[in-house]
Amino acid sequence: MIKTDILIIGAGPTGLFTVFEAGLLKLKCHLIDALPQPGGQCSEIYPKKPIYDIPAFPEILAGDLVDNLMKQIAPFQPGFTLGERAETIEKQDDGSFIVTTNKGTQHHAPIVAIAGGLGSFEPRKPPIPNLANYEDHGVAYMIRDPEMYRNKRVVIAGGGDSALDWSIFLASIAESVTLVHRRNEFRGALDSVEKVQELKNQGKIELITPAEVVDVVGDRQVAGVSIKQGAEVFNKPCDAFIPLFGLAPKLGPIADWGLEIEKNAIKVDNTLDYQTNIPGIYAIGDVNTYPGKLKLILCGFHEATLMCQSAYQRIFPDKRYVMKYTTVGGVDGFDGSRKEAPKAVVKKIE
Amino acid sequence: MIKTDILIIGAGPTGLFTVFEAGLLKLKCHLIDALPQPGGQCSEIYPKKPIYDIPAFPEILAGDLVDNLMKQIAPFQPGFTLGERAETIEKQDDGSFIVTTNKGTQHHAPIVAIAGGLGSFEPRKPPIPNLANYEDHGVAYMIRDPEMYRNKRVVIAGGGDSALDWSIFLASIAESVTLVHRRNEFRGALDSVEKVQELKNQGKIELITPAEVVDVVGDRQVAGVSIKQGAEVFNKPCDAFIPLFGLAPKLGPIADWGLEIEKNAIKVDNTLDYQTNIPGIYAIGDVNTYPGKLKLILCGFHEATLMCQSAYQRIFPDKRYVMKYTTVGGVDGFDGSRKEAPKAVVKKIE
Ligand SMILES: Cc1cc2nc3c(=O)[nH]c(=O)nc-3n(C[C@H](O)[C@H](O)[C@H](O)COP(=O)(O)OP(=O)(O)OC[C@H]3O[C@@H](n4cnc5c(N)ncnc54)[C@H](O)[C@@H]3O)c2cc1C
Ligand SMILES: Cc1cc2nc3c(=O)[nH]c(=O)nc-3n(C[C@H](O)[C@H](O)[C@H](O)COP(=O)(O)OP(=O)(O)OC[C@H]3O[C@@H](n4cnc5c(N)ncnc54)[C@H](O)[C@@H]3O)c2cc1C
Repeated sequence: MIKTDILIIGAGPTGLFTVFEAGLLKLKCHLIDALPQPGGQCSEIYPKKPIYDIPAFPEILAGDLVDNLMKQIAPFQPGFTLGERAETIEKQDDGSFIVTTNKGTQHHAPIVAIAGGLGSFEPRKPPIPNLANYEDHGVAYMIRDPEMYRNKRVVIAGGGDSALDWSIFLASIAESVTLVHRRNEFRGALDSVEKVQELKNQGKIELITPAEVVDVVGDRQVAGVSIKQGAEVFNKPCDAFIPLFGLAPKLGPIADWGLEIEKNAIKVDNTLDYQTNIPGIYAIGDVNTYPGKLKLILCGFHEATLMCQSAYQRIFPDKRYVMKYTTVGGVDGFDGSRKEAPKAVVKKIE
Repeated sequence: MIKTDILIIGAGPTGLFTVFEAGLLKLKCHLIDALPQPGGQCSEIYPKKPIYDIPAFPEILAGDLVDNLMKQIAPFQPGFTLGERAETIEKQDDGSFIVTTNKGTQHHAPIVAIAGGLGSFEPRKPPIPNLANYEDHGVAYMIRDPEMYRNKRVVIAGGGDSALDWSIFLASIAESVTLVHRRNEFRGALDSVEKVQELKNQGKIELITPAEVVDVVGDRQVAGVSIKQGAEVFNKPCDAFIPLFGLAPKLGPIADWGLEIEKNAIKVDNTLDYQTNIPGIYAIGDVNTYPGKLKLILCGFHEATLMCQSAYQRIFPDKRYVMKYTTVGGVDGFDGSRKEAPKAVVKKIE
């Protein structure tokens, strides 16, 4: 059982920044995300695209925003349960909660902050019979640990950025990479498309287009795939089959937690602290709704900040927290680090 | 008469970022500030100190935060009335407002956003009889345009960062700089104190301590000051006398505009758009109050963003604004500039 002060569901920008604001209040956080990496939409959908409306960044790549947030929160040592979906929540007699993932990992906390964005990112799966039988036995829809594919024969299907970028990356560690796509045209960043072309010319990526993977073969473990190209169907031996057709967010199990839902989002009290109808459960960032709500990153930051103050009062009803500016009070990490402004000196000039 | 869409009172971080959010909605802004430079508290009180809780900046100097905001809003060409205090507001028959400063400058806009922070920064003045008579005739409490002091004989009074930093700066352009302080000890950033020591050693700054300026002499225009050192009082001829004893914010005239005031701040409706009790006047950032209010920079950013949406609806009651992510829609400056994400390509690999 993982124990923490604030259990955050969703490691997008809102969930990540919550760790920082909680840390200033000396509260520890743990994050659960269905994705293998932190960053939510920013990492999954548009890591290499610029955002222009993050305050004081005339321009920042979504991936860099996430990197910066990870650096900012590092002193507060957040825990992560990645690649797992929060599935059920049970309220305990003392008002605390136990949240269990689809893989059975259990988390216990007095406060739950849902920062689930548009929902848990779930892969779009191709309609191949028996595909599900091979999941975790050679079939994967996202890549958690690229090292798993070292010296393996990998078949990737898809024609977008993920398919291109992972083909490029795995080309340097896998025994072989085969990229299968329904069309001859790929859609992605220009340099990714050009890099795949180059690796293909060098014989480091095998391209099969226009074609489709129509079957997986193997005894429990993937041994190969059947590929249909034109009228022909042929077998391609491989150790791993990775269909990368994008991930789509689904509010999913959270919709059944007894929370008030409106427009596929969780209704919260924006007059005070972004609390849901269940005391102790908050909803912040894209996942919540209230009059005038804007699904913007900068709004999630504000909501997270107010929410942490309220969480603090819930955990310590008898303490009065006096806010100190970070510039004045400094930042004390749980790792023993301390950041502080250089002090003014009082010094004689003679 | 200066005309604009949103008249912003206060050019602190909140007021500045408002320009950006308004610009995305194609609304023009003009800012009034009592200070000679933009940035509010960040520029005036702690420009060289680090802030740690600006989202995605593990650390940023307050002055750099302001510089970044100025860069971010530049494409939306904000107007500035600096060094003037907004004094009166008059509602027009059509619901718009005319705001007049202490220097008589008039501004006309359908929307007024008060981003006045802790109030208009007003100088602490030393108790020297007749000092007021010399204001704008050689006496100044803040430096609007350092060029005014080129080849002049300047006396500065004070023992803090402003006195140190301006002594250093003016030493390179003025004919002479004399720094007068009640104590031998100065209080400021170590490198500022050391730099003044160095300039003193080189004879580029004359230091008179412990001493006090007790009188200004001259016929309408400053011709010199009387300095008291111990039992002795002597005359020091000069062209300018600049007492730098810090600026203190005062809510000031805004307190009399008929707005609901609570705890020295303006009450707003935080359930929707940070509107005050007077329709068309909003209050955002440190200057407002509502249940759970935190006087933090990141909160001002959120408030500004929601406020701009509401202002847009007030100005264009019949239009429905459909928000577009900056990443997706790009940013079109009023100066004709355009920022946009590199487009994905659709390209054959052969
Ligand atoms: C193409 C594009 C461009 C954009 N441009 C901008 C822009 O310019 N400016 C701007 O402000 N915003 C922009 N956005 C929106 C911005 O990305 C979102 O507002 C932001 O990501 C929301 O952050 P969040 O942390 O609330 O949620 P998300 O980023 O959606 O993260 C939520 C996370 O929660 C996880 N999750 C949800 N439910 C569960 C569960 N049950 N178990 C485990 N994990 C779960 C999800 O997997 C996800 O990783 C853009 C979005 C897109 C798609
Ligand atoms: C030492 C110190 C450290 C801080 N550290 C942090 C920190 O770590 N994190 C954080 O988030 N915040 C911090 N703050 C607070 C932060 O600076 C404020 O929250 C922020 O500046 C508020 O921005 P604002 O734009 O709302 O108002 P302000 O920055 O106060 O700007 C308001 C402006 O309005 C002008 N004005 C007001 N009335 C009038 C008028 N009638 N006419 C003309 N002009 C007028 C004023 O002159 C001023 O320039 C700190 C503050 C201080 C003093």
